[in-house]
Amino acid sequence: MTIPDISELTLEEKASLTSGASFWYTKPVERAGIPSIMVTDGPHGLRKQRESGDHLGLGDSVPATCFPPAVGLGSSWDVDLAHRVGEALGAETSIENVGVLLGPGINIKRSPLCGRNFEYLSEDPIVSGVIGAAIVNGIQSQGVGTSLKHFAANNQELDRMRSSSDIDPRPLREIYLRGFQRVVEDAQPWTVMCSYNRINGVYASEDPWLLTQVLRDEWGFDGLVVSDWGAVNERVSGLAAGMDLEMPASGGVTDAQIVTAVQDGALDESVLDTAAGRVLDLVRKATAGAGAVAGPLDVDAHHALAREAAGRSIVLLKNDPVDGAPVLPIAKDSSIALIGEFAQTPRYQGAGSSMINPTRLDSALDGIRALATGAVTYARGFSTALEVADDEVAALRDEAVAAASIADVAVLFLGLPARLESEGYDRTDIDLPAAQLDLVDAVLAANPRAVVVLSNGGVVALPFTDRVPAIVEAWLLGQAGGTATADVLLGDVNPSGKLTETIPVRLEDSPAYLDFPGEFSHVRYGEGLFVGYRWYDARRLEVAYPFGHGLSYTTFAYGDASASVTGDGDIEVRVAVTNAGDRAGREVVQAYTSLPDGVVQRPVRELKAFASVSLDAGETGEVVLTVRRADLAYWDIRVDRWVVEGGQYLVDVAASSRDIRATVPVAVSGDDVVLPLSRTSSLGEVMAHPIAGPVVHAAIAQMMGGMDGAASIMPEGVDFTKMMESFPIGRIGMMASLGGGEDGVDAAQIDGLIAMANAGQTPGQ
Amino acid sequence: MTIPDISELTLEEKASLTSGASFWYTKPVERAGIPSIMVTDGPHGLRKQRESGDHLGLGDSVPATCFPPAVGLGSSWDVDLAHRVGEALGAETSIENVGVLLGPGINIKRSPLCGRNFEYLSEDPIVSGVIGAAIVNGIQSQGVGTSLKHFAANNQELDRMRSSSDIDPRPLREIYLRGFQRVVEDAQPWTVMCSYNRINGVYASEDPWLLTQVLRDEWGFDGLVVSDWGAVNERVSGLAAGMDLEMPASGGVTDAQIVTAVQDGALDESVLDTAAGRVLDLVRKATAGAGAVAGPLDVDAHHALAREAAGRSIVLLKNDPVDGAPVLPIAKDSSIALIGEFAQTPRYQGAGSSMINPTRLDSALDGIRALATGAVTYARGFSTALEVADDEVAALRDEAVAAASIADVAVLFLGLPARLESEGYDRTDIDLPAAQLDLVDAVLAANPRAVVVLSNGGVVALPFTDRVPAIVEAWLLGQAGGTATADVLLGDVNPSGKLTETIPVRLEDSPAYLDFPGEFSHVRYGEGLFVGYRWYDARRLEVAYPFGHGLSYTTFAYGDASASVTGDGDIEVRVAVTNAGDRAGREVVQAYTSLPDGVVQRPVRELKAFASVSLDAGETGEVVLTVRRADLAYWDIRVDRWVVEGGQYLVDVAASSRDIRATVPVAVSGDDVVLPLSRTSSLGEVMAHPIAGPVVHAAIAQMMGGMDGAASIMPEGVDFTKMMESFPIGRIGMMASLGGGEDGVDAAQIDGLIAMANAGQTPGQ
Repeated sequence: MTIPDISELTLEEKASLTSGASFWYTKPVERAGIPSIMVTDGPHGLRKQRESGDHLGLGDSVPATCFPPAVGLGSSWDVDLAHRVGEALGAETSIENVGVLLGPGINIKRSPLCGRNFEYLSEDPIVSGVIGAAIVNGIQSQGVGTSLKHFAANNQELDRMRSSSDIDPRPLREIYLRGFQRVVEDAQPWTVMCSYNRINGVYASEDPWLLTQVLRDEWGFDGLVVSDWGAVNERVSGLAAGMDLEMPASGGVTDAQIVTAVQDGALDESVLDTAAGRVLDLVRKATAGAGAVAGPLDVDAHHALAREAAGRSIVLLKNDPVDGAPVLPIAKDSSIALIGEFAQTPRYQGAGSSMINPTRLDSALDGIRALATGAVTYARGFSTALEVADDEVAALRDEAVAAASIADVAVLFLGLPARLESEGYDRTDIDLPAAQLDLVDAVLAANPRAVVVLSNGGVVALPFTDRVPAIVEAWLLGQAGGTATADVLLGDVNPSGKLTETIPVRLEDSPAYLDFPGEFSHVRYGEGLFVGYRWYDARRLEVAYPFGHGLSYTTFAYGDASASVTGDGDIEVRVAVTNAGDRAGREVVQAYTSLPDGVVQRPVRELKAFASVSLDAGETGEVVLTVRRADLAYWDIRVDRWVVEGGQYLVDVAASSRDIRATVPVAVSGDDVVLPLSRTSSLGEVMAHPIAGPVVHAAIAQMMGGMDGAASIMPEGVDFTKMMESFPIGRIGMMASLGGGEDGVDAAQIDGLIAMANAGQTPGQ
Repeated sequence: MTIPDISELTLEEKASLTSGASFWYTKPVERAGIPSIMVTDGPHGLRKQRESGDHLGLGDSVPATCFPPAVGLGSSWDVDLAHRVGEALGAETSIENVGVLLGPGINIKRSPLCGRNFEYLSEDPIVSGVIGAAIVNGIQSQGVGTSLKHFAANNQELDRMRSSSDIDPRPLREIYLRGFQRVVEDAQPWTVMCSYNRINGVYASEDPWLLTQVLRDEWGFDGLVVSDWGAVNERVSGLAAGMDLEMPASGGVTDAQIVTAVQDGALDESVLDTAAGRVLDLVRKATAGAGAVAGPLDVDAHHALAREAAGRSIVLLKNDPVDGAPVLPIAKDSSIALIGEFAQTPRYQGAGSSMINPTRLDSALDGIRALATGAVTYARGFSTALEVADDEVAALRDEAVAAASIADVAVLFLGLPARLESEGYDRTDIDLPAAQLDLVDAVLAANPRAVVVLSNGGVVALPFTDRVPAIVEAWLLGQAGGTATADVLLGDVNPSGKLTETIPVRLEDSPAYLDFPGEFSHVRYGEGLFVGYRWYDARRLEVAYPFGHGLSYTTFAYGDASASVTGDGDIEVRVAVTNAGDRAGREVVQAYTSLPDGVVQRPVRELKAFASVSLDAGETGEVVLTVRRADLAYWDIRVDRWVVEGGQYLVDVAASSRDIRATVPVAVSGDDVVLPLSRTSSLGEVMAHPIAGPVVHAAIAQMMGGMDGAASIMPEGVDFTKMMESFPIGRIGMMASLGGGEDGVDAAQIDGLIAMANAGQTPGQ
């Protein structure tokens, strides 16, 4: 089947291609042999609606492997694993004859309250971009497409279809777009999904700056932009902005608007040709890729991969000794009390469009019973129901305490009830339910060898962190999370995940606390660049657990690090890491940079590269991290482009953002930024100018007896030079009357000086 | 002398009136009998340049009483005192034949780092507005004018002539403009001085929104706008925006630009007529008022007022007992060791344009020697020089320790060297010099009965606050600050000042820490509404001393409070206050409001009124505070105007922002906000609409089996209603395909529903 060229289609046919046929299908043009293709939700599994049933597919979708949601997979910091999970996702997509899997989602976790944080990778754009690119490459290797979403700055659910994310240029570029840029440049997703929200007042679905200038012209995106489902505001202006495909169906209403606009001359037909052409390109790719993977699905193999991925996603937050011995891993012949509803009924994914109908579902209870050789008891501990009678709370607690008191180890499975975490709305606090917190203290009193295992999509406050000896952050881990948790608790898997987001002490400490989720459809990103760890570090705030943190059952020693600039201008960082413990393990090594005394404000340190190394006990390996030169750049609002400032950068080689093992300096050459002088140039800038500087110095000296003369009349050692530094050269007329004269300085003299300096001339030439 | 009407002047004469003749004089038009008038710097004294000497007048100005700078006077919270100081300032202005005193400055102290904070009153707009209005009324009662400055959002010195203060509408209105509005409405200053900076990208000197729409049309300002000295960017657009008088002289250059613009038709001559007419009005007022106060200046009387004002400006931060007895006041027959350079050489004002040549200058050393009957010794303690040798530091410290060790009480006069606080640049930290901090510990070790007296224009960190039993915040107090400090230390004056700004524990805790002073001429006011105590309270941060705090040598007990709405819609708050101690004193009572569960974000509490009461020992007085209805309003960005939300407000009657003595509820009726429905109205808004709600409910039920039907297919108790609440009604087409249909909902149906709802009709009518 050959897809025809766009020139062979009528105006109406072209318009019809740019919106969906139904909830999940593009429109065919049967006359021209253009088929419909199917797209379905992801991102951590295939959510393909059955032929019968509701169209949103919430009720009944084809069973698929539920891999760890992004909150888990991101915590692996494992690029290879993310690629392999992507391959598996792509294979399942191909087997089901779906053309595009709608994911990954890589929005920045701006606030812990965002209801959809479980679908996102990190508070950091490098983690989001690197892991996101690996997922896209993995999926697309199977002949199916992805949809990178939600583009862009969609960092909350409340009022998401109207709210304007009001963001200054630097944070927008350096935090919220950087990850998208990385994925586009490294992986070319077939499609990018524009988000519901507005950015600085403009709907993402009709923003030519976002969808064309940035995405295509700057980043070189050559795929198709699809709307998030229902994100179209005005279809014609959206099309003109670069929003190619409206989903879902508009019933032909917006197609007709496009036809009318072309006929009226309000829309150039070439704009439609471009968009419809991109739809045809997508159909061509999907058609070409179809059947790349033959079914049926190998359920066992994908479940095993889901288990491996879940094991690598788990973050061991704390593992202190009790009576001289670490609580974890638990000896298999111990008697173990498992407490908490989530041990039996796992929370393994979040609610909303990403909800998978899993092929299987492992509970931690079953997983531990399968591995342990000692007695394993289970007590429900608490209820996640909305309303629980006081006596039921007490009875559940008493039962749990009784179980804990006679076991060697008590493991508390705490977490957030499912209703608190969903697409479509946000949390209003980060607290675990009070009954669970009470339970922790009751169990601890009965048995100090206690472990807390957390099931949650967004971070929670851990008020018990100083009292509980061992804490395992087990997120939402997909269908094999229960067995993976068993693997970690009993030591079959050595935990190696690390936090991709900070766990704060209190919600009030979090950067966006005072402007999340905004009001009246505007949200000011007032924390600017200082998102996540950038905030806690800059304000020197204590955190519960820092970004990048995660323990192992072994320990890793870092040797001296080195850093050098490669021929491409990247920074290559090398460090030897030794497994100093007695069991094999994997260490995620992080490289953060800073530039002290730079021309722009910078966070204390920013993650720029990471790599992981698996080492046997006693083994040493060299880890090489590459910091891309482009990732050193800041967005310069004076010239509206990326600029790498030259200077002596510091590279922190670290086990977490607050566990710096080595710091190495490296000299980086800067990009040229030629800023012409103007009448608004400050005296400081002019005096620093190689040509204009000496001239102005002399002129000021003549006018007012020189800067020293002026300084001498200032009392008490006031820094007169500092006062004058920001005085614009164009206002120097005022200095004249200050100096005693009453005539203004000739504006032509200033303009002449500026012209001379900008032309590179010196006086007398 | 009669000032002619504007119609009698030529184009050139009118243009000439709109810029200065020299640094301090307006231009005369001799042909028409229009005199020049003089304006001079303030604000806390008259800085009139002598005839000879430099034009900036830094070196030599006519002696004048140096009253406490705003940082001091504001801390009095004393409206009557501010008015009396204003009268004295006005009298000195009149005696010297000056037409306008350039003050007061009421900019908000956004960051403790702003170099000019000593010239400003508070971090709170009500304090700034109320005290500012009293000063203006006081000055202008003497037949001379004021210049309310710096209008507006000029909250830093760095890059002040270019930097754009980028502020969202609510904080701009509710924090940064509210005080200006109060002064304009309550006191009608003769002039308002536009600031150097830009606001949201537009120079204050050429912003028609600021200078005409807000200042004149909304607030009813009927005076003249003068530029800060050198603040004019483009003269013609400034004139058109409402910037009437350019200062200082432009040498005729900008006058000629105006003439050309009128001749070219680029500027309507009526705009020039308006501006020049305002200059003539000012000249008329100044001429009419001239000679209102006969000289010579009563130096003694004004010095006495300066001493009274300084005494009321002092804030007693802490006064703990040592060995059972409070350290302060110091018994006059004690032996006292005075330590620190500032005891002998007072810091009493800041550097820059506000610097007064005082008629006298009292030191604390002389003041204490005059009052004390015991031995008073003095040790310099430290040097404020830029570079001090280590051995000199040690010698000074040792001498101080020796003096402290043999005295009954040691009083350390600490503070900031003058060079750290000036117009023209900002501080980069809030630390006292290390040598002074070291000295505190050395002296404390020698004598636990120690008092720290602070001399500083901006707040400083107080790392010794837990160790020193008594701390006196003595700010910069003007020429009589030394004797006033003696009055307080020795008990002749019972301290009664309170903080008008928070003293934070660390600079890193302060709201603007991460975006002050901005970069590349932009500063984002990212903390939004949460300036000063609003920030520390909302984020539940510890502070060193909270806004509104100040102790007395007596104590005050608060009775029950009541609050009721008056006929004008204001809230009248009444509380009985009893002097529960054994000496007379003055208490500043504060009223804060909050509105729990309001429609907009609000600070935990906001100051809305204050009053002070002087009570003899044992006396009870009723304090009445009036919260103006207008001050309850928030700025509503949907309708772009002030709105008082109706509801049950809570009024906290308080001794400080963190010492709430009583909380009383009061019901306030709301302003109507009629928001028509539109296609972007959310389902939540539509369903809450009395007319449209039932219709939409029925339509949804028909389309998809009702919301309950949809909810029933969501797993795990997800809150489907919450998910849908922010769905815009105009996008309901998507719901149709979700419900099984593939046709869009007829847009006309939605538009019809909206029209019907907005017209107040119900279906079938």
